[in-house]
Amino acid sequence: MTKVMICGAMGRMGTTIANMVVENPELELIGGVDIRPGQILGKPVVESSGLAAFIEEYKPDVMIDFTVAAATMVNAKIAAAHNVALVIGTTGFTPEQDAELIDAVKGVPVVKTTNFSVGVNIFWELVREAAKRLGDYDIEVIEAHHRHKKDAPSGTAKTILKVIEEEVGRREEMYGRCGMTERGNEIGVHVIRGGDVVGDHTVQFHQNYETIELTHRAYDRAVFARGAVRAAAWVSGKAPGLYTMKEVLGL
Amino acid sequence: MTKVMICGAMGRMGTTIANMVVENPELELIGGVDIRPGQILGKPVVESSGLAAFIEEYKPDVMIDFTVAAATMVNAKIAAAHNVALVIGTTGFTPEQDAELIDAVKGVPVVKTTNFSVGVNIFWELVREAAKRLGDYDIEVIEAHHRHKKDAPSGTAKTILKVIEEEVGRREEMYGRCGMTERGNEIGVHVIRGGDVVGDHTVQFHQNYETIELTHRAYDRAVFARGAVRAAAWVSGKAPGLYTMKEVLGL
Amino acid sequence: MTKVMICGAMGRMGTTIANMVVENPELELIGGVDIRPGQILGKPVVESSGLAAFIEEYKPDVMIDFTVAAATMVNAKIAAAHNVALVIGTTGFTPEQDAELIDAVKGVPVVKTTNFSVGVNIFWELVREAAKRLGDYDIEVIEAHHRHKKDAPSGTAKTILKVIEEEVGRREEMYGRCGMTERGNEIGVHVIRGGDVVGDHTVQFHQNYETIELTHRAYDRAVFARGAVRAAAWVSGKAPGLYTMKEVLGL
Amino acid sequence: MTKVMICGAMGRMGTTIANMVVENPELELIGGVDIRPGQILGKPVVESSGLAAFIEEYKPDVMIDFTVAAATMVNAKIAAAHNVALVIGTTGFTPEQDAELIDAVKGVPVVKTTNFSVGVNIFWELVREAAKRLGDYDIEVIEAHHRHKKDAPSGTAKTILKVIEEEVGRREEMYGRCGMTERGNEIGVHVIRGGDVVGDHTVQFHQNYETIELTHRAYDRAVFARGAVRAAAWVSGKAPGLYTMKEVLGL
Repeated sequence: MTKVMICGAMGRMGTTIANMVVENPELELIGGVDIRPGQILGKPVVESSGLAAFIEEYKPDVMIDFTVAAATMVNAKIAAAHNVALVIGTTGFTPEQDAELIDAVKGVPVVKTTNFSVGVNIFWELVREAAKRLGDYDIEVIEAHHRHKKDAPSGTAKTILKVIEEEVGRREEMYGRCGMTERGNEIGVHVIRGGDVVGDHTVQFHQNYETIELTHRAYDRAVFARGAVRAAAWVSGKAPGLYTMKEVLGL
Repeated sequence: MTKVMICGAMGRMGTTIANMVVENPELELIGGVDIRPGQILGKPVVESSGLAAFIEEYKPDVMIDFTVAAATMVNAKIAAAHNVALVIGTTGFTPEQDAELIDAVKGVPVVKTTNFSVGVNIFWELVREAAKRLGDYDIEVIEAHHRHKKDAPSGTAKTILKVIEEEVGRREEMYGRCGMTERGNEIGVHVIRGGDVVGDHTVQFHQNYETIELTHRAYDRAVFARGAVRAAAWVSGKAPGLYTMKEVLGL
Repeated sequence: MTKVMICGAMGRMGTTIANMVVENPELELIGGVDIRPGQILGKPVVESSGLAAFIEEYKPDVMIDFTVAAATMVNAKIAAAHNVALVIGTTGFTPEQDAELIDAVKGVPVVKTTNFSVGVNIFWELVREAAKRLGDYDIEVIEAHHRHKKDAPSGTAKTILKVIEEEVGRREEMYGRCGMTERGNEIGVHVIRGGDVVGDHTVQFHQNYETIELTHRAYDRAVFARGAVRAAAWVSGKAPGLYTMKEVLGL
Repeated sequence: MTKVMICGAMGRMGTTIANMVVENPELELIGGVDIRPGQILGKPVVESSGLAAFIEEYKPDVMIDFTVAAATMVNAKIAAAHNVALVIGTTGFTPEQDAELIDAVKGVPVVKTTNFSVGVNIFWELVREAAKRLGDYDIEVIEAHHRHKKDAPSGTAKTILKVIEEEVGRREEMYGRCGMTERGNEIGVHVIRGGDVVGDHTVQFHQNYETIELTHRAYDRAVFARGAVRAAAWVSGKAPGLYTMKEVLGL
């Protein structure tokens, strides 16, 4: 059995993940860390500052981290130094943080993605197929999330932009057209925030009196947790290196 | 018969309007002005610099103007000075231009609106009904137009914002969320530009795991021309003053 | 404190409601009935056949019922005979069942609606405002729910149709255009079933190169439970009669 | 120069096509047939009953036909008998008519498709890519057209269904869920008719709290005419056989 610990174990996402870990017969929940100490499903949760001691005592095989960029920068390095495999769902890294993090954890197997849902990972493939064929169309990306989401655009949208640009070439991104504007070949990016929207992403391709639109909509945050738990079961024992859900799902 | 002249008579909008004027038994097309001289449906079109002389020679009752803000600022004053009624569909005025224009034409009857379509005018009423009931929801406005549209957001969207704020109170408008953000009670405004989209407008209200959304979609620019021609037939002979399509349509 | 019992107490909806009842300081959960006996949050759940005895023993003030039409036909009559107030969220009644039920429970206060969410109740008002102004447009209604929903169209959609027809007059409803068709003034009704869609409802008005569309989207079944619990707190002690959420919410 | 004739030459679609033919330097408009005789852009239009004589006199290389199934069944056979290449945009054939037609015209080169737009042809490819990856999702197809469209679902939607079933296997199609229903693995098909909607097509894939949706929207019937004219220029001189826009566009 693979021993799993969780960062941010007592938050909404951590709790959802913990419940799925205990339901998975290949996995054993051993506890985690959070801002305050406590318990999760009867397992110990210690303060984040005690992460190294926690790892030494409980010897997790995998650490799942869905927190914030600053916390993950610290946590992931400690885990990697202790040879713990990583599943990272945190978003909002700067490009510099991202590069630093990837370098710091290269000694262990890591699944890192901006979105762990099966559907989003397939959606990215479909966006790629569309971008391949519609590179000369005007492209716009729209995402919507609940009012509490801090980073804009979402990590998922950033991956959408990356996928599109891998196919159509580097483009400028345009946030917030206002005043007198002139559309060139930029990609317009629109970040909607409101209520409790779980997570919608739309890519539009416009040209010649026609519009082609691809949309992904999530109805429950559980889809992200489920993918992360699947990644935790998969990553343990893999060779060191950086993996995405494409490998986990065998897409 | 009401004599009608058109500014920008040989452009796409001008041509559409001219064709509808000649089909209307109450109206007589007498020509117009444009950047270059020419003809429209057999009627004379002179350079814009010759507008005053054109009016003195052909004595129009109504001038229809769907051009750009800078041009309309000049044209409308000349028309008003010659006692010609006005139908103004130009958008993209600054608040200062708007105030100056309204003051300058107060001696003649003027129909001025950011959107002449019957559907949009009803849509504004529905947005008002929604805002009345959903003032504590998170509000986002999204509009989409063809790649050649210059002003952002559209005049129609600006009127949507005005209608909402008349009901829910003054709000900040947020263009282009990017980076770390914190949603307050601002209204997010999103301007999509691409291909040949005729004109879509959406207002979203988000709260408490629910979203209510109102959308207007136009399929043909002719809807704007049709409303303008209806306004031209209506405005002639009215008392001096500023009117909207609400009065023309009797909504 | 108002004593609340739940029909279908151990199902997904019953469980959600039970949790909200115990969190509400005005309400006391006393248990319920279900297909099989058991417990819900430490309170007794008996078989449906034992409903009368359960009521006599535990003396509930209000019974909340979100089951299926056949079950509610029996349960509600027993509750009314014992002078228990009712909150009914069951849908899928035939018009005959509906009439019979309303007659049978007229001695107690009853809140009955096809949708308990605040947003949907406001949405119905907005649909009414739209239908009032757009009665000569072509009207289409589209609803989408998860693959397990049995009744089609949803109770919420049936109320939408009722609201529209109160404004525009009686219309034929058209399900499943196929083959050679001729659009008259019918209302097209489209029932999408798939995955885990919580509940989307759209009304479209089409005419003259314009479309106006109103959409309500729910992100979590909890919105229905929350409204039902609010209704339970409201209905206890009211005069006998049939109420909707309009009265509960004071819309 | 390729000589082009048009069936239904004076209708809305025929007129649009005629105008594009005369603008194309590779093509020469020679006239056509229609219900009543007349002229199109100065070229002769004769009654449909005179088609054979028209062909003998004016010797077209290509005949473009966007009429109705019954008319095309007759016209296409006459054209093929006279060795005239065919571009067929008519939809609404029964499977039997379709088979009979294809057999009857096998001696000439024929481009036949349910949709001539570039965007729709790419859209079909994207639907194929999605169906390949999402075969175990619940699939629903929604199309919307103006109130005057007779055949339901649209030819384009029928091709969408064919493409999906080529990837996921034969499925039942479900039109008009109503009453008590049980979702199996059928494909739900929804036909919206109203106003002047040019042509929208959506494919939804639902599963596991996620929805993936692909939409194509046309803003102007000209996109279909443009593709047909491009096909006319391409088909002349090709080997006998049945072609689609995939070959014309080199997708």
